[in-house]
Amino acid sequence: MINSNPTCAVLLIGDELLSGRTEDANLNYIAKKMTSHGVDLKECRIVADELDAIIPALNELRAKYTYVFTTGGIGPTHDDITVEAVAYAFGLDIYRDESVVKAFHDRKGGLVNENTLKMADFPVGSTLIPNNVSVAPGFNVENVYSFAGIPSIMRSMLDGVMPTLESGAEVISKSITSFAGESRISDQFEAIQNAYPHLSLGSYPSTQDDKWCTTLVVSGKEEADVAAAFGKVVAMIQDTKIEIIEIVE
Amino acid sequence: MINSNPTCAVLLIGDELLSGRTEDANLNYIAKKMTSHGVDLKECRIVADELDAIIPALNELRAKYTYVFTTGGIGPTHDDITVEAVAYAFGLDIYRDESVVKAFHDRKGGLVNENTLKMADFPVGSTLIPNNVSVAPGFNVENVYSFAGIPSIMRSMLDGVMPTLESGAEVISKSITSFAGESRISDQFEAIQNAYPHLSLGSYPSTQDDKWCTTLVVSGKEEADVAAAFGKVVAMIQDTKIEIIEIVE
Repeated sequence: MINSNPTCAVLLIGDELLSGRTEDANLNYIAKKMTSHGVDLKECRIVADELDAIIPALNELRAKYTYVFTTGGIGPTHDDITVEAVAYAFGLDIYRDESVVKAFHDRKGGLVNENTLKMADFPVGSTLIPNNVSVAPGFNVENVYSFAGIPSIMRSMLDGVMPTLESGAEVISKSITSFAGESRISDQFEAIQNAYPHLSLGSYPSTQDDKWCTTLVVSGKEEADVAAAFGKVVAMIQDTKIEIIEIVE
Repeated sequence: MINSNPTCAVLLIGDELLSGRTEDANLNYIAKKMTSHGVDLKECRIVADELDAIIPALNELRAKYTYVFTTGGIGPTHDDITVEAVAYAFGLDIYRDESVVKAFHDRKGGLVNENTLKMADFPVGSTLIPNNVSVAPGFNVENVYSFAGIPSIMRSMLDGVMPTLESGAEVISKSITSFAGESRISDQFEAIQNAYPHLSLGSYPSTQDDKWCTTLVVSGKEEADVAAAFGKVVAMIQDTKIEIIEIVE
């Protein structure tokens, strides 16, 4: 059942991410959720608030992966064009959802205006995605799920749809961090990778107490193989007699 | 001279970003540098440590934008394949750079091994990109610049190449944050956008003291127009009599 997991891509929409004004806070949350649900996140793209940027990316990603998750661009201002982009990509009209109109009136009363009601417009046939922070829902068309860009709202929307997503084998990871430099062990590490080609072995240098250290990660869907390969990695580090900082299993 | 700025894309390479193990810390730094240098960052992609993922993305981006900046995958382990990917994309062979070999021997002496020397291999014709943290350089082939993934090293490499990049008109931004909700002002805000179609007006909701607030940003390359449009945005917020939190000019 190797590589039989569903796949997904993330499309982050927003000028502010590309100008550097804002730092994305959504991708990592989505990535972790997908990993533990057994959905392989294969790619992320970040594009501007422009139909010419969003639509081709959306069409390419939705044809390639089981699911596409978008964030941003579902508010009431002129730069919020995700509904329009998704509708165009799927060749759908846009309708105004009366249940959402009513929800806005119930929550905001006399403050509701035409701008507010832009957030009640969706591509025809959408399944709406509620959240526990605001009235404005996200929406799902076929394999595309469009969430808000505000992290608290995005998380609530994603959490809500998780049980509806096909799940695959969870990826299990074990890691060891030590002061052994990558160059010291990379040939042996590669030999272990070659012995377990269906697992993913990664090496991540960083610094601790101003000294270089390396985290070696073994991950895969077959628990016994992950354990066996990781045992070899740990033995390899122990053989160097170099200090081990942490083992996470 | 509107829209005459050079353009760029960022390609972040690394399984760890897609599994959620690591949160990217490079895009925002690159984005801010480009904005102040007058280079328009149009797109970012995040792909896995796989040639089949890196090469097509690289070829698409380098054909489309003035510059492409990649991060990650230039170390000594088997999952570091950026040199191979760039060489393949450009149809180049890989050579071992003797000046880098010497630098490794000078720095590391007897600890240098074949793994270390993998970091002295580059596509033929590369311009090497030194950094002030480690011996291992990044490299530049035509319009593609490949940096390390470790943020301290990436920053040093990028800072080093900045003076060699074509620069355009800096994007000037002014912003006002208030407790006015987006729905309250989005029609007037859009009217200001329509009056200044060459500027970019963006609206970003967030929370402060558990209350919703909105930051309205006016940005563009024409200082006088940015000032004029921003004056209208400030007047619009003042008219609401709603509390202003901050004005940044």
